[in-house]
Amino acid sequence: MSVRRKYDRIPDPMSRRLPAYYRMLQELEAAGQTDISSLELARMMNLTDSQIRHDLSSFGGFGRRGLGYNVSLLKKSIGDIMDINRKHRLIVIGAGNIGRAVAMYAGFREAGFEVEALFDVDPQRIGVAIGQAQVYSMEELEQYLKNNPVDIAVLATPVSQAQKVLDILGALGVTGVWNFVPATLNAPEGTIVFNVHLADSLMALSFRMHEKVVVEKNEGWTEA
Amino acid sequence: MSVRRKYDRIPDPMSRRLPAYYRMLQELEAAGQTDISSLELARMMNLTDSQIRHDLSSFGGFGRRGLGYNVSLLKKSIGDIMDINRKHRLIVIGAGNIGRAVAMYAGFREAGFEVEALFDVDPQRIGVAIGQAQVYSMEELEQYLKNNPVDIAVLATPVSQAQKVLDILGALGVTGVWNFVPATLNAPEGTIVFNVHLADSLMALSFRMHEKVVVEKNEGWTEA
Repeated sequence: MSVRRKYDRIPDPMSRRLPAYYRMLQELEAAGQTDISSLELARMMNLTDSQIRHDLSSFGGFGRRGLGYNVSLLKKSIGDIMDINRKHRLIVIGAGNIGRAVAMYAGFREAGFEVEALFDVDPQRIGVAIGQAQVYSMEELEQYLKNNPVDIAVLATPVSQAQKVLDILGALGVTGVWNFVPATLNAPEGTIVFNVHLADSLMALSFRMHEKVVVEKNEGWTEA
Repeated sequence: MSVRRKYDRIPDPMSRRLPAYYRMLQELEAAGQTDISSLELARMMNLTDSQIRHDLSSFGGFGRRGLGYNVSLLKKSIGDIMDINRKHRLIVIGAGNIGRAVAMYAGFREAGFEVEALFDVDPQRIGVAIGQAQVYSMEELEQYLKNNPVDIAVLATPVSQAQKVLDILGALGVTGVWNFVPATLNAPEGTIVFNVHLADSLMALSFRMHEKVVVEKNEGWTEA
């Protein structure tokens, strides 16, 4: 076993749990709870007590005997690990339904992600205000990014335009892209593309509902 | 080891991969490719060759030596497992930005998920057409569900109304809820609630971008 260093890569399954931990702690803090035991957190997260203690200790959150974890401190350290304890500037490419919904969605602003501008090619959309942001022409994108460096671009164009726009974003130095376009895209070098694939999550729901019916119809079947 | 039965529960990590397999196969089919090797599929899915063969064999997809898998047959069996080879009827509760975006999103319709109606309490929204669906008053929900059984309800209300509406949906017999409200809700008995938590995915992107910077700044560091 290697000695653990401050910035060792966090193993994947745990990194997937980070946002959920953060959200739970946010809700606890909002409800005025100052401390939480690993047992209580385990119940809320559908994990075991020892998984929780292992997860939290590996990024420096140590419970105090009889007191558990301090909610605000733990939230702060998980936020630091995810680099969300600061404002993130976002732009949205494509001011259609998805683009507009992302620009308006309250859950992002609360988490520090602010949409500052949208871009589109449709003259009817350009100049319109969406929430606190404005829709600009795609021709203005390069100049806009020069004057206003952004952290993340949200990709919400039609499928046919997505790869072309993604390549432009990469060439303009955008390092993070949050992709809502239901297509498999090639990430430009130096750009991290994070795909949302909303339909995947609908399919997963369908699978769970179907599985439940099958399981209920076949009580007593063993797990694989 | 137990003998594998037709409807044994599919292990969780694999079930999470099912929609991604399906999407890949959909794209291959649309591109006119009839066969694919496990090696090629592994590369596309960022998995190992043996993971692919293990996944696919466990739900009855067997490759043919030298030919690989038949794209359409494999897509059909994965679709059957997820129960998506049929039309799903959806309603959307809350005709705000998220609700409207879901109702308009092309990716769902292609996958067989059709939004047939939206419901809201705002008189200004009621009666309006969103894509091919219409916005009804929440007071019409019970009667609507009696006449039009739906598979899935999309929850897109304000946070303050979400639990109340979810309880109503459960009482009216809706068995699947796709929740876009950024809050932790209690699922009514008999209802599967699938949370989207869009902000989680943004936080995960932020984490990956931050981690990349850290890793690049510290080349040669070992994996934990």
